[in-house]
Amino acid sequence: MKIVGLMSGTSGDGVDAALIEVSGRGQALKARAIATQTLAYPRSLQQRIVTASVSGTVADICHLNALLGEWFANAALNVIRQAKLRPADIAVIGSHGQTVHHLPQGIQAPGVGAVRSTLQIAEPAVIAERTGITTIANFRPRDIAAGGQGAPLTPAAHALLLKHPRRARLIVNLGGISNVTYVPRGGIWDGVLAFDTGPANMVLDSLVARATNGRQVMDRDGKWALKGKVDGRLLGKLLAHPFLSRRPPKSTGREEFGPRLTDELLSIQTQQGLSIEDLLATCSMWTAKAVGTARRWIKGTIDEVVVGGGGVRNRAVMDNLTAVFASTPVTTFEALGWESKAFEAVAFALLAYQTMTGQWGNIPAVTGATHPVLLGAIVPGGPRWAKQFRL
Amino acid sequence: MKIVGLMSGTSGDGVDAALIEVSGRGQALKARAIATQTLAYPRSLQQRIVTASVSGTVADICHLNALLGEWFANAALNVIRQAKLRPADIAVIGSHGQTVHHLPQGIQAPGVGAVRSTLQIAEPAVIAERTGITTIANFRPRDIAAGGQGAPLTPAAHALLLKHPRRARLIVNLGGISNVTYVPRGGIWDGVLAFDTGPANMVLDSLVARATNGRQVMDRDGKWALKGKVDGRLLGKLLAHPFLSRRPPKSTGREEFGPRLTDELLSIQTQQGLSIEDLLATCSMWTAKAVGTARRWIKGTIDEVVVGGGGVRNRAVMDNLTAVFASTPVTTFEALGWESKAFEAVAFALLAYQTMTGQWGNIPAVTGATHPVLLGAIVPGGPRWAKQFRL
Repeated sequence: MKIVGLMSGTSGDGVDAALIEVSGRGQALKARAIATQTLAYPRSLQQRIVTASVSGTVADICHLNALLGEWFANAALNVIRQAKLRPADIAVIGSHGQTVHHLPQGIQAPGVGAVRSTLQIAEPAVIAERTGITTIANFRPRDIAAGGQGAPLTPAAHALLLKHPRRARLIVNLGGISNVTYVPRGGIWDGVLAFDTGPANMVLDSLVARATNGRQVMDRDGKWALKGKVDGRLLGKLLAHPFLSRRPPKSTGREEFGPRLTDELLSIQTQQGLSIEDLLATCSMWTAKAVGTARRWIKGTIDEVVVGGGGVRNRAVMDNLTAVFASTPVTTFEALGWESKAFEAVAFALLAYQTMTGQWGNIPAVTGATHPVLLGAIVPGGPRWAKQFRL
Repeated sequence: MKIVGLMSGTSGDGVDAALIEVSGRGQALKARAIATQTLAYPRSLQQRIVTASVSGTVADICHLNALLGEWFANAALNVIRQAKLRPADIAVIGSHGQTVHHLPQGIQAPGVGAVRSTLQIAEPAVIAERTGITTIANFRPRDIAAGGQGAPLTPAAHALLLKHPRRARLIVNLGGISNVTYVPRGGIWDGVLAFDTGPANMVLDSLVARATNGRQVMDRDGKWALKGKVDGRLLGKLLAHPFLSRRPPKSTGREEFGPRLTDELLSIQTQQGLSIEDLLATCSMWTAKAVGTARRWIKGTIDEVVVGGGGVRNRAVMDNLTAVFASTPVTTFEALGWESKAFEAVAFALLAYQTMTGQWGNIPAVTGATHPVLLGAIVPGGPRWAKQFRL
């Protein structure tokens, strides 16, 4: 079954599209990437999305929902064309949409109790109409309705795609924040654990942006960090950050590792007379050691570490991870045939496959749901759409 | 197949639920009402919905979407209980949701062109999770994606439920505004026409509210109008309203028949020294004659007039309609076994049935779509949900 996955992240910079082929189920599931592509939004649209997510009005959301539907449809058609396939070759599209709000903490409502909610837009009826392909979207609300946080949903894809029959794997995602998924041998969902581990690109990128007055936005390939020396005093301080010793389930973000921390780091840099290279070397090591703390909470053995996310291109962080995990081999998503950048799009293609085949998409131990559920809302491509479903 | 339909109108006063039984297809389709019920919202929730529809923020919409999902789920469970059935007896729920915005006029977007949109909320994943019943929602966006206005969708239900094998029927809905659907003999969709005809309860209700300083909100049973006399001079003026002679497709609302018109009518009443009874008698006749203008645009014969909507209880309007249509018999939805008040909920149950059986739900000549489409997004009740679909 060939499936397209579509994803637009919270930065709102464009639609990642992935075309994959999937067969089998559960531990016997097999999948491969056929093509991936990113359709970048114009700057004005990105700005509208970011603004709408914070303070958008009902009219903004109504219009953006349909407008993003058109962009998502184009992203799907582009990746299908790139693979030299036709829409009729595609069984289903799995579209995450664009998150514009996420309120997983309950808000009390009279007569109903605590109501938790999330809102993804990019109208699937537009995607289905433009492509003629059955489209599954709105994956998160069902997990929330079942008592979960609606996130993270990628660990199910980690377990299905990055499993190994005889090796227990720690999947590491180096995004703005680092998070891990523990995938037991054979990829069985019982025993899958996932949580945030600490800072990653968010800290490194913002230090570079501040040091270069915005002329550079990242330490490309970790070159600066590789020239610096880790400062033991600062590293010790950073490793004492309370998030690192908090027990999972745990998640974090800009509140703990955003601009306020960058300010603190730059003031310590001045106090201690560190070069920007030393500062980046230290924070790169901190990133790796924060990931290493995952071992405290995982009871099973870890036979292999598999790293994905934008951070895989940072040589300094990757070298440090190899050092931190010592005798445990460290490899990458790329080495297993999956592009880091497109992996979330791949994950939603795979979650669509789960729904197509009548299989659960959430892992209750990971999202906090009281039970597993079928995820998503299905918009028919054409009149005989349900014949494709293999329940 | 037993189906629950759920609807909350723009006044946001509660969820109408209808439980119906349907079999057959198209001209051979048969349906009957089993139970109907309204779950009223508390005043505070109604206020929040009305406010959110005009100036809600993304956070309001996100939260209300999940909150209304809970109310809709309760409305469904209540009507099932009332019918002494269990959720397992119900094949599917068709939920219109709550419209919070409707922008069917295109707004230009760079690189995409004119984008038209609509937004209904009341999260179907919540309805499916609480009831365990497969839920179809978001009916309008697909028609809009196919070039239509996303409305009106009830004419398809009129054609399927109120057809007669040998009589062409004019279906009249007396809501705030009056609208008609012409259903040819046998209910064939070719030849179905639908459009707004003019003012109805909106004008009558607001005159009563103003005359009683809000103590009464309607001319109950048309009692006041029945005591008054139609004023020929005023009626002549009202019949010259340009909307009445506009060619369909046409739709209208508060802009043309809202508070500004009420002000005008009250000032004419003072000038001419009319009693409130005379004013209501005149406007009741205007309502009936506006409906009568439908005959100008319908080429086929009309063998019978079938009236629904809150206005069926207004004896003055009904008497006037009988006079206006002269030798053509005038009957009501109620006489054909359908409650006027619940008919929109019934319509969305029926549109869910259309999707369940792989049949189109929109009438392109009515909505303006370039072609017929399957309507709705389907949220699975349980893992074997697609087995129920009869495509």
